[in-house]
Amino acid sequence: MKSKNPKPMKSILSVIVLFFLSLGLNADNGHQLWLRSKSNIPVQVVSKRSSAILTIARQELQHAWQGEANQTVVLGLTREKQIKGDGFRLSAEGVHANTERGILYGVYELLRRQQTGQAIRDELVNPSWENRLLNHWDNLDGTVERGYAGHSIFWRAGNDSLTVTPEDLKLWEAYARANASIGINGSVLNNVNASPKVLSAAYLNRVKAIADVLRPYGIKTYLSINFASPMVIGRLSTADPLNAEVVDWWKNKTKEIYTLIPDFGGFLVKANSEGQPGPQDFGRNHVDGANLLADALNPYGGLVMWRAFVYNPSDEDRAKQAYNEFMPFDGQFRDNVIIQVKNGPIDFQPREPFSPLFGAMKQTPVMAELQVTQEYLGHSIHLVFLAPMWEEFLHSDTWQEGEGSTVARATDGSLFKQKHTAIAGVANIGLDDNWCGHDFAQANWYAYGRQAWDSSLSSEQIADEWLKLTFSRSLFVEGDQKVVLPMEWDLNFLKPVKQMMLNSHEAAVDYMMPLGLHHIFAAHHHYGPGPWWAPKGMRKDWTPPYYHQADSEGIGFDRTASGSGAVSQYHEPLQSQLSSPETCPEALLLWFHHVSWDYKMKNGRTLWNELCYRYDQGVQQVRQFQKVWDQAERYVDRDRFGRVQQRLRDQSLNAMEWKDACLLYFQQYSQRPIPYDLERPVNNLDDLIEKDQRTIRAYE
Amino acid sequence: MKSKNPKPMKSILSVIVLFFLSLGLNADNGHQLWLRSKSNIPVQVVSKRSSAILTIARQELQHAWQGEANQTVVLGLTREKQIKGDGFRLSAEGVHANTERGILYGVYELLRRQQTGQAIRDELVNPSWENRLLNHWDNLDGTVERGYAGHSIFWRAGNDSLTVTPEDLKLWEAYARANASIGINGSVLNNVNASPKVLSAAYLNRVKAIADVLRPYGIKTYLSINFASPMVIGRLSTADPLNAEVVDWWKNKTKEIYTLIPDFGGFLVKANSEGQPGPQDFGRNHVDGANLLADALNPYGGLVMWRAFVYNPSDEDRAKQAYNEFMPFDGQFRDNVIIQVKNGPIDFQPREPFSPLFGAMKQTPVMAELQVTQEYLGHSIHLVFLAPMWEEFLHSDTWQEGEGSTVARATDGSLFKQKHTAIAGVANIGLDDNWCGHDFAQANWYAYGRQAWDSSLSSEQIADEWLKLTFSRSLFVEGDQKVVLPMEWDLNFLKPVKQMMLNSHEAAVDYMMPLGLHHIFAAHHHYGPGPWWAPKGMRKDWTPPYYHQADSEGIGFDRTASGSGAVSQYHEPLQSQLSSPETCPEALLLWFHHVSWDYKMKNGRTLWNELCYRYDQGVQQVRQFQKVWDQAERYVDRDRFGRVQQRLRDQSLNAMEWKDACLLYFQQYSQRPIPYDLERPVNNLDDLIEKDQRTIRAYE
Repeated sequence: MKSKNPKPMKSILSVIVLFFLSLGLNADNGHQLWLRSKSNIPVQVVSKRSSAILTIARQELQHAWQGEANQTVVLGLTREKQIKGDGFRLSAEGVHANTERGILYGVYELLRRQQTGQAIRDELVNPSWENRLLNHWDNLDGTVERGYAGHSIFWRAGNDSLTVTPEDLKLWEAYARANASIGINGSVLNNVNASPKVLSAAYLNRVKAIADVLRPYGIKTYLSINFASPMVIGRLSTADPLNAEVVDWWKNKTKEIYTLIPDFGGFLVKANSEGQPGPQDFGRNHVDGANLLADALNPYGGLVMWRAFVYNPSDEDRAKQAYNEFMPFDGQFRDNVIIQVKNGPIDFQPREPFSPLFGAMKQTPVMAELQVTQEYLGHSIHLVFLAPMWEEFLHSDTWQEGEGSTVARATDGSLFKQKHTAIAGVANIGLDDNWCGHDFAQANWYAYGRQAWDSSLSSEQIADEWLKLTFSRSLFVEGDQKVVLPMEWDLNFLKPVKQMMLNSHEAAVDYMMPLGLHHIFAAHHHYGPGPWWAPKGMRKDWTPPYYHQADSEGIGFDRTASGSGAVSQYHEPLQSQLSSPETCPEALLLWFHHVSWDYKMKNGRTLWNELCYRYDQGVQQVRQFQKVWDQAERYVDRDRFGRVQQRLRDQSLNAMEWKDACLLYFQQYSQRPIPYDLERPVNNLDDLIEKDQRTIRAYE
Repeated sequence: MKSKNPKPMKSILSVIVLFFLSLGLNADNGHQLWLRSKSNIPVQVVSKRSSAILTIARQELQHAWQGEANQTVVLGLTREKQIKGDGFRLSAEGVHANTERGILYGVYELLRRQQTGQAIRDELVNPSWENRLLNHWDNLDGTVERGYAGHSIFWRAGNDSLTVTPEDLKLWEAYARANASIGINGSVLNNVNASPKVLSAAYLNRVKAIADVLRPYGIKTYLSINFASPMVIGRLSTADPLNAEVVDWWKNKTKEIYTLIPDFGGFLVKANSEGQPGPQDFGRNHVDGANLLADALNPYGGLVMWRAFVYNPSDEDRAKQAYNEFMPFDGQFRDNVIIQVKNGPIDFQPREPFSPLFGAMKQTPVMAELQVTQEYLGHSIHLVFLAPMWEEFLHSDTWQEGEGSTVARATDGSLFKQKHTAIAGVANIGLDDNWCGHDFAQANWYAYGRQAWDSSLSSEQIADEWLKLTFSRSLFVEGDQKVVLPMEWDLNFLKPVKQMMLNSHEAAVDYMMPLGLHHIFAAHHHYGPGPWWAPKGMRKDWTPPYYHQADSEGIGFDRTASGSGAVSQYHEPLQSQLSSPETCPEALLLWFHHVSWDYKMKNGRTLWNELCYRYDQGVQQVRQFQKVWDQAERYVDRDRFGRVQQRLRDQSLNAMEWKDACLLYFQQYSQRPIPYDLERPVNNLDDLIEKDQRTIRAYE
């Protein structure tokens, strides 16, 4: 393959024109995701071997090739030490890799570079983590926990719920292709709050059907299991992990699975957490439970991903509990166990510090669980591009092995010898035509895959790629679609829309919970504000006042030595930095400190005033996004334009509710005016509380 | 009486301090209206006669005297030709008038000037109109049509609905006192959509009880009558005005009334309008009907106020119908009949041109009906000071007798010899503690009375008076009320809040229906926007599309010669001015013209863009009002501050809905973008329409 860069304009234009001819004009349901490119420029694909994976690689090249006509591209298996796992080498010849999967990823990378105008040069490309998973919180009845894009693509309710239809197969393949194109190589098909039924023979047959579709795209299938399965499915009297019958049951069940799915990935386990059964119910501990499953899986190379999302209604700061519970077990787990830890110590908040469990255990591998679905970030209504949040997280320095011990390096095997490395993202995928509910939520699926592949990628680069792949360089005038020059498109669409994406997470933090505030959401649905919610008798670690701690003196959760002491779970010098309000990043100030309303911020404002400005800034930002999007109207088909426009309006209104709710609620404590140069609240606190109660009731 | 002006500061302050001691701190239900002043400075009131009215005049002076201690104030009856009707002469001695009522008004004027720091000099003060009425649209079951301040103060449902309680008497007296203090001398106690029952003996007894309370405050009592009363109450087979039995029935009924209420004011009649019965039901006309009643009332000096608010579902422009129907009758009415005409030709819209019936009839007197209750101006939620709207109306030039033939002069007897002159305002009063629902809606009651007394008063002067009378010059700091210097108060409270009031009507026009748009309200409740509302089969003059006439070319109702020709009902040169879009005031452009979306406005913008800017400007103005009010917090007791603050928030949200609804709806026709420097809509059109349908259903 000859690398030519930049491509001659004429060639690009002709490709684009061809591409448009294949598209319905001015209407787009978003189903094509970032896989829109299609061309009929011929290409010669050379491969000595043939297999399902290589066939797909070849088809993809032929489907979307944008290089010179009739160029030769070699797809070759090799044995190169520098290539790790799914990695590959791009060269003038084509793609070489140690595995077929590596070749497929190389092909997608090659096509992506063609489509986004990136240089294609001789290059070795290795993934950051060995296992890059999507976790689907899909229930067997077809609902999706924290899903905002329709029902499950894997499960459904009804009499024929287990029948595999042609539509199922088509959808699963489209899903697999999208994942493969961004390097995702594992899917956990069911909710971590798992029904034991998934391990029954009937359901395993459907799992096998799904696995068969995912396999040629290099994707392993995993299941979330219910720790009490031996009792519920196996009719045993116990699920005690040290009980011989239980051990046997898991061995047999695992064998049954591998008979159906030889490359089955393993189990994801939520145990002794939020009411789920676990080894503690039988007087055992996490090690006993995880090792039980690890031993069953070990003969087949399967993995256990054991979640550390545990906390009890004790007096101990919830942010400390996972660390306290897991640290004593460091080194006691089998080497096919990975502890799966949410990015922050509480629960997928708009901004959290990284969980101290990253960079804590040295002998037991830890993996990050990110949440692609926007449970706490506006569901599928708000436009919030999550890559910057994950970038911030992955590049956070744990100081575990001195400076530079980032979360990424502490989990990807760079710092510690780990047999396995992994990363997981809770999927935002459902049956909606556009998969994710919000057309821009597709960018979070995309970004998760890209960052899981390469943790050094910048959010800017990911947004740039996604926009170029997802929106066509065209102009829509009264139903007619016209090609525009890339420069015009870059200036009028790409640049402002990309900037909107890059600003969107910080905007959401500002209008929801700036300066380290967290978990002041409306109960249950976690969409709107609910800083006031604290029904009598409710366990306090489920109520916002537990987290914001507002009183007449000030606001924030004291996690220093004078408070819960959670800072002690971080390494020095980070611990000292976080311990003092002067050195603690202001973005996390109220996470770690209870400070007075008159506390002076670095910009000279009081804390109260700064809080007001931040909330207002969040609202103003969303309004700015609306302007950006409306100005992009000419460059977007009517359907997608309209969908996003409508959601931005909802987001704008909701941002105002957030601002008003939080400022008016906290003002009851601060007793200080909202600075008069700021736009005033337009919602009354009582009305917001009443509305909140209505939405909560509707949810209950 | 010695006039001293300006008053020494010390004296003012001591009065203010005394005044505060009599007030509950930091809480105010608004019931005191503008009658808050109280002092214990002694005053010597000298009056040769004694009567109920003069006793009240004396008490008011003693209650609130703020002049020199022990000054002598003479209240004297005189016979001075220059004093007209209820007029009076202020002099160094005191107050002189031809009637006791005149003396009472003089006393209120004197006290008002003391309280507001206005000069008191020798001066003759005459009222603009002889009869200054409030029309109460109160139903006998206690509900109030278009009332937004609770139920009726006169009527209630239930078994004891006709029992006069001590609370009734107290409330009616407070009502009478408030009216007297601003010169209102007549009250129509029941809705123009009148129940015949009000003329039954039982109800007339209650009317008498009310009249007895109003009388010492100089207020005459009137009733709205149902034209079919002889049939319903009198069991006659007809209500034909030329039928002898009917004539007798009305004569007897009138006699019965005057036996109970010797100073009864007369009848207000809505006939053959919106389903009400009238002479046309019996093949007769308005003259027949009005003269029937006039003849019955004539022996007692009573008046008939016959409403011209008539229109039919014909093809004729609704704006033309009242003129067409009444002009042929000019001169045929008895001289105790006055034709009562709403200010605009449609129906109390945020802005209308004056009705062409003003300055049309030369031999039959016409009176204006203003709407104090904010049916089309945000109910008791929006802060809209109506004085500027009425000022604009009263000073509109009809050109009836050449330049300067303002509506005021065409109705107050200056242009035509009229036996009687009058003006009416539809009251905004109910059982709410603060009478009007919105604390600032009290200013509209106040302003109506003041303008009815003196049509030359500026809105600015009225707002100034009202604010000084209604809000105390004090500072509220953490529950403590402190006196502030008038200069500080003037600068920080009076000036900005007055400006807010003065801007508030234009703001409402901007966010509801700028540039002459009208009647695009939600059906029935007339609160929110409903430009889309046009159910199948609905008579079209009840639907907004009839009024806005938006299409792909442009928007507006063509009332020029090429359209409905309504302009022909106006005198020259006004007719020509209105006929051309170039000379028609832009504030009325779409009232008189259907103009293209690209029509160039005087500021160079296209009509569409100007529409966008106006709507946006309305929203921005309300936000500005919120800032003004929030900054006034220190100067207002907590209760009133909070009530107004909450309503301003509601108004702000509602203004955004108006803007979004109208721009998104009209954009469907204009197909032009909202200028990108403007804040984008935050509501989706579909959601607004659905919400509208919900509120309409709730009303139905």
